[in-house]
Order: sequence, then structure tokens, then C-alpha cells
Amino acid sequence: MQTYPSKLLEQAVNELAKLPGIGRKTALRMALHLLKCPPAEVETMGHAMIKMRNDIIYCHECRNISDQELCSICANPKRDHSLVCVVEDIRDVMAIENTGQYNGIYHVLGGIISPMEGIGPQDINVDTLLLRMEKGMISEVILALPTTIEGDTTNFFLYRKLTGFNITLSAIARGISIGDELEHTDEVTLGRSILNRTPYESILIRK
Amino acid sequence: MQTYPSKLLEQAVNELAKLPGIGRKTALRMALHLLKCPPAEVETMGHAMIKMRNDIIYCHECRNISDQELCSICANPKRDHSLVCVVEDIRDVMAIENTGQYNGIYHVLGGIISPMEGIGPQDINVDTLLLRMEKGMISEVILALPTTIEGDTTNFFLYRKLTGFNITLSAIARGISIGDELEHTDEVTLGRSILNRTPYESILIRK
Repeated sequence: MQTYPSKLLEQAVNELAKLPGIGRKTALRMALHLLKCPPAEVETMGHAMIKMRNDIIYCHECRNISDQELCSICANPKRDHSLVCVVEDIRDVMAIENTGQYNGIYHVLGGIISPMEGIGPQDINVDTLLLRMEKGMISEVILALPTTIEGDTTNFFLYRKLTGFNITLSAIARGISIGDELEHTDEVTLGRSILNRTPYESILIRK
Repeated sequence: MQTYPSKLLEQAVNELAKLPGIGRKTALRMALHLLKCPPAEVETMGHAMIKMRNDIIYCHECRNISDQELCSICANPKRDHSLVCVVEDIRDVMAIENTGQYNGIYHVLGGIISPMEGIGPQDINVDTLLLRMEKGMISEVILALPTTIEGDTTNFFLYRKLTGFNITLSAIARGISIGDELEHTDEVTLGRSILNRTPYESILIRK
């Protein structure tokens, strides 16, 4: 156990080491960096973290992080409100928005089912999704969860929950990345890309 | 430029991205992690950072981070107060203390001379070192700075400043790490390890 010359420093390191992916060595480097910053800057940083945690709002509809009751996507009348894309968190919303290829709305689960980390169906925003479904305005749900065991588990759980509704249920395509060589693609992805082959004409149309 | 769905989130990400080695993607991951933590935990973290920056004290003698005016090393009468080891920052003090091989005291520069980063001699704790020297209690100074251009520049600057005092000036040994193979050592290190070879008897005595 490392001994620190100052309790204040030790406490700051302990706290910073709680951030994801930050070990004690990196936390110490961060703390020493903060000590070189002007005190006002450190106050701004600390207060920005606290204010964000206390004041942030989740969109009433899609559970996306928002500054209003309805996020800018759900409030946009030009978007297709019958098409819902289910994602793990806000980073996925930002990534899909960046593609410029999607004009529907979202539903942010805020996590995926992971028995290893003690996250069950009750810990993610499933009930709010079902409430939205019951209004009968949604005709297609796209599952856009990660290709992991947790993602597959959550996909299957949602499939069971949504099967009673009169909707089209789809999942985003898995396959070889644009620009990738076949010989460097892993077997599972390559195998699935052959099983899930797409009619060539539909690719031609997109171009 | 990435657009965030919330100003509060964007501000927190901007602030977290100011930490060393943290890009905007990692900062976003950290912010989303904070949103899942209980608000009290985020408050504790924010306040620990602010409190450390505002309340920390530097040892009156060696400029090490401390909770008292005199750090625990400088206040220890069992340590050799005639032997001073000059280091860049507190991490080096902690690393040397961990070896259990050093019984002298320290002087923490709080940085090294780096024209590239705009850090000059006036930005590091040189004046306080010279004040300590003038008291005439110090008989040996060990330079323990990094083996970089900046470290070498600072070493030479200190050599020029300390040359008027009646002391032994030494630098920590450079050479092959314990357990390293010769064939995997870089040429410069290997070359210097031959130039600075140590009498074999002195190694025998240490074992």
C-alpha cells in the first residue's frame, strides 16, 4: 500500500481512482496536475461534475440525457416517430446521429442486462419502452445493442417482451466493416456476413 | 465537432477532458459513469478535488506536498539532514521512499526546465534550494531527475548554480535495469553503462 505525504492528496487520489479506467498511478498524476492548475479552474471542474449529476434531466419519452423534459430529437416533428431505435446509452445516440443516416427516434436503455455486474431487466429502461409501445404509434423497433453476450441477452429479453405488439422488429446489420480486408476479419463476423448476405441490388440502390 | 444533447453534460465533458491524458471520448465515458453514481458520491469527488487544491500545504523546507508546515521526512531527526536528493515531483519522493535505500532528505523542484512547455528556471523551486544551501548544513546533493533533454538541461542548470558551494554533487546511476538482458537494452544506455562501470567489489559489498 502506497503511503501519501498528505491526507488531502490521498483523498483526492482515492476519489479520482473511482473513475472508470483510472488506476491509482493515473489518479496521482491527475491530482498533481490539478495542484498546478489555478484554484478557480479546479473549482470549475469540481462544480461542473456536481452540477451535471444533480441537475441533468432525462427525456420524458426516450430517456436520453437532456436539458428539457423532451429532448431535441423527440421534440422534432420532422423525425419519423413510428420508428424507434433501442440503444444502450447516449454515446450510441450520438454515434448514430453522426452518421446522418437515421431519421427515426430513440429509446435509451441506460445499460444492458449483465448478470456478472448485477444489472437485471429492472435496472434498465424497459418499462418506459413498453409504455411507449402501448400507445400504438410505433410500427418498427430496431435493436442496436452491442455484439456481446450482454447485448444478445438484452436483445432476446426485448424480443420476448415486444413479440406481443404488432410491429416489425429488426436488429442492425452485423458484417464486415467498410474498408476491411476479408482475410483480417474474425471467423464469427465473416461467417455471419455470409449467412446474412444482402441482395446486391439493394446495395446498388444505396450508392 | 460533436454535439451533445445537454449543455450540462457538455460542460462536464469539457472540464474532464482538461485532465492529463484524457481525451473527449474518455471524458464522455467518465461523465456517463458519474451520472450512474449516487449524487452524494459525485459531490464527495468534486469537493475532494477542490479541497485538495485549496488547502494543500507545501513543506517549508523541501517543498514536498504536506499537511503540516514541515513534512514528515524533514521533521524526522533520524534522517541525514546533510544529504539532499533533488527530484522533479512528489511521485519521485514516493518512489525513492519505497526502495527503503535512502535516509537523506529531499528537495522537490515541482517541475523541470522545459523551453518547449514554457517552463523556465523561475518556475521551479531553485531559489528555495539555494536558500537551504546557504545555511551550510548540506554536504552532498544528489540529482535524481529524469533522463530526458529537460532533465539534462535542469541538471546542468543546477550544476552551474551549486558549483560555488562546498558540497559533493552526484547524480543517480544510469545503467541496465536489474533483470534486463543486454541484447534488449538500447545502445545509449548500454554505452553509458560501460563508460560508468562500477568497481565489482562495491557491488559485492552491497549484496
